[in-house]
Amino acid sequence: MRAITGTTRVYGILADPIYHVKTPEVMNALFARAGVDGVLVPFHVAPDGLAAAVEGLRRMHNFGGFIATVPHKTAMLDLCDEVSPDARGVGAVNCVRRDPDGRMIGTMLDGLGFVAALRASGEDPAGKRVCLAGAGGAASAIAFALAGAGIAHLTVVNRTPARTDGLLARLAVAYPGLSLATDPGGGTHDILVNGTSLGMRADDPLPLDPALLAARPFVAEAIMEPEITPLLAAAEAAGCRVQRGRPMLDCQIVLMAQHMGALQPQVLNEGAAR
Amino acid sequence: MRAITGTTRVYGILADPIYHVKTPEVMNALFARAGVDGVLVPFHVAPDGLAAAVEGLRRMHNFGGFIATVPHKTAMLDLCDEVSPDARGVGAVNCVRRDPDGRMIGTMLDGLGFVAALRASGEDPAGKRVCLAGAGGAASAIAFALAGAGIAHLTVVNRTPARTDGLLARLAVAYPGLSLATDPGGGTHDILVNGTSLGMRADDPLPLDPALLAARPFVAEAIMEPEITPLLAAAEAAGCRVQRGRPMLDCQIVLMAQHMGALQPQVLNEGAAR
Repeated sequence: MRAITGTTRVYGILADPIYHVKTPEVMNALFARAGVDGVLVPFHVAPDGLAAAVEGLRRMHNFGGFIATVPHKTAMLDLCDEVSPDARGVGAVNCVRRDPDGRMIGTMLDGLGFVAALRASGEDPAGKRVCLAGAGGAASAIAFALAGAGIAHLTVVNRTPARTDGLLARLAVAYPGLSLATDPGGGTHDILVNGTSLGMRADDPLPLDPALLAARPFVAEAIMEPEITPLLAAAEAAGCRVQRGRPMLDCQIVLMAQHMGALQPQVLNEGAAR
Repeated sequence: MRAITGTTRVYGILADPIYHVKTPEVMNALFARAGVDGVLVPFHVAPDGLAAAVEGLRRMHNFGGFIATVPHKTAMLDLCDEVSPDARGVGAVNCVRRDPDGRMIGTMLDGLGFVAALRASGEDPAGKRVCLAGAGGAASAIAFALAGAGIAHLTVVNRTPARTDGLLARLAVAYPGLSLATDPGGGTHDILVNGTSLGMRADDPLPLDPALLAARPFVAEAIMEPEITPLLAAAEAAGCRVQRGRPMLDCQIVLMAQHMGALQPQVLNEGAAR
């Protein structure tokens, strides 16, 4: 990475714990490739210190913004001066820009990173019928981003019906024209998505009924470790095209850099297509 | 510099303006040489945001401390939870450690860096008679550090008598045994020090009477630009040993890293002797 000088713009990632975050390495590598005079550093902030930490960052004129991750995504919703409709719908903020006047502008890019990765794989979700496993934080973000990308139908499959109902209700308010269902057997799907954590452990059950693979849908995974989850293995065996979890992060890093003002929008396409 | 990861400890420099600061490059180079998993970044903070910025940094558990420079050195005195006696005497803080419990511990290292540089040049000030030009911030820090290093006598020469009187009064309280004077003609001096800004511009008058060079004192400069001030040029012409301004900064960087807990004390000696 380039040397940090008095003109370098500072960005952060707020998390608790912090030791495991990978974003500083990935973002600083992106800054280096794109020639950005910026640096992203880790800030270990506990929940009880979040409001004061954000207030302090607000007063730093060369601070460009930050990524909020566990456990701060929900709390950031109320600490921002402005949040995107998707972030409001998902109920969480994961990226915040500090405007020159100190205002904090939050958004939620988990799902938009997923959609950008889909498009980079040549799978435009517009008009498609999608079946999504999960109704938690990651799945909600993916659901809102898919709805925003113009899918025709979304089936949400989840073990906790109340969570599914809540997500469908919020989606119905934000996207009144979207066809929604909870029974994956009610029709065929062009795209299957795993937005649960099922598949991180070798003995996890599949997040979706493998019978759904018979129609040869495109299968996308949000899990990064392992690289090939049991669902992806089954999908490949069934002759489906698949997308691993990692491109979702790679695409999101570019979106984050753009939201924080470190990269211009056109760089997105280069980054996503890389 | 090494890659920034989730385990990297963060340090800062607070200034307004910020673009001109050199500390990030110098400190990060020191961290790289010493194998410290740390990074120092610039924080542009205006006076009206200083308290909130410090409060925010207090809540960041992986934040190790910061350097305070213009215009924050005086204000930091009251924003620290604890300050060193020298910082209290000088009336300014330029380096703050964040303890694990969030307490901010301030000190003033401008003068100690100067004394460390003197010692590295083989000029131990203990027992010496010193004549110091200046009674402002930099000169006060040097005066206190020289007093702490055990000089036998200090003559302070300054254009503003009230400032001189104030410095001498504070020194007399902190170091009651120290011989103090304001007339440089009252005795010989082993060491002459320029703690004023006279010499930064080519047409500045000399900060001290060149007649003082006749006794072949050691002559030390706090100005870094130009490297050879008119005083240093005159001193070299008179056959005096001299010390430029830069070693004061180099030694102080090591002291700052130590105060903030990034380096162990023994590294000082290596750094200073380098």
